[in-house]
Amino acid sequence: MTTQRKSSAGAARRSESSRRAILTAAFELVQEVGYAKLSVEGIAARAGVGKQTIYRWWPSKGAVLFDAFLMLSEGADGEAALPDTGDLEADLKTVLRATVAELNDPRYGEPMRALSTEITHDPELAAVYAERLDGPMKEIKKERLRSAQRAGQLAADLDLDLAVEMLWGPLQNRWLQRGGPLTPEYADRLVETALNGLRPRR
Amino acid sequence: MTTQRKSSAGAARRSESSRRAILTAAFELVQEVGYAKLSVEGIAARAGVGKQTIYRWWPSKGAVLFDAFLMLSEGADGEAALPDTGDLEADLKTVLRATVAELNDPRYGEPMRALSTEITHDPELAAVYAERLDGPMKEIKKERLRSAQRAGQLAADLDLDLAVEMLWGPLQNRWLQRGGPLTPEYADRLVETALNGLRPRR
Repeated sequence: MTTQRKSSAGAARRSESSRRAILTAAFELVQEVGYAKLSVEGIAARAGVGKQTIYRWWPSKGAVLFDAFLMLSEGADGEAALPDTGDLEADLKTVLRATVAELNDPRYGEPMRALSTEITHDPELAAVYAERLDGPMKEIKKERLRSAQRAGQLAADLDLDLAVEMLWGPLQNRWLQRGGPLTPEYADRLVETALNGLRPRR
Repeated sequence: MTTQRKSSAGAARRSESSRRAILTAAFELVQEVGYAKLSVEGIAARAGVGKQTIYRWWPSKGAVLFDAFLMLSEGADGEAALPDTGDLEADLKTVLRATVAELNDPRYGEPMRALSTEITHDPELAAVYAERLDGPMKEIKKERLRSAQRAGQLAADLDLDLAVEMLWGPLQNRWLQRGGPLTPEYADRLVETALNGLRPRR
């Protein structure tokens, strides 16, 4: 019995280490070759496992890449709140500038482009993404907005889901559609314009 | 000479009719099979031309699809202005509701998803798209906003490019990322929130 237990613990450890090797390989490889040329064969070779090991756990390269994102985001669990200095505009600028820097970094940008286009064409993956990655991120953003709303800095009847889309949507869309450069100044202007609105304020 | 000229006019006509048949076939086929399964072979079969005819004019299926969009947008040249009743909010709601209806219609939605993801992964196509399709459309939108700005309905120092992104970016992004349903009510709320901003107005 003891031996048996030991050996399945060992198998679980080996499994977990293969899983991590596969996810890391997928994330690295997509940066190097792009999503179109990413293949399960390539991931297997980089991770030092057989192709069938991957297919045992994931149905497609898109699914592997998605889990690679989940692994990364779980690693970042400790810092699951936006800055809250009391100055909403300054805090949002800090956050959107960080988003700009991340999207401009090919180590993150390329895999994220791949994930985004997979979601565009795959409603099922989109649902899992919404539930496991985007949903929790959105909740973190809304929490910061809720705090500002309590402080009277945001309209009392504001729809916070829509508010998140007003701040991050144009940025994400400019990035995906390559509509213009993503700069820190762009992040600042976007925050100011979303907060103030297009109509004049006296 | 006359015969020669006649015969090249005939060839040009035949060329133009093959070109239109190919573009129409590409647009129809992507609706039926999706972009991943769209192929130059499939387009050629549907259009009743040889594969080599397509490759003589276009380097890839993405390029064919892009020209199909151009052909459609040229057909719509007559109505190249947004409504201007003097009521900016009402006019923008009309336009964004029309955009919502169009994106929800699979005849347009599916090819547009395909084009959008091509652009995400292809900076060269993105540049051509920006110049020939998105640029002119953006100019039409800005023209309407400029008229409102002259009437004092928009902030005098508003960056009109950014204003266009604030109105259409969240919509486009929600659609591409499948972040939620696109409804007429969503279009209305988006217009109101962009115009008023997230901060309270007294």
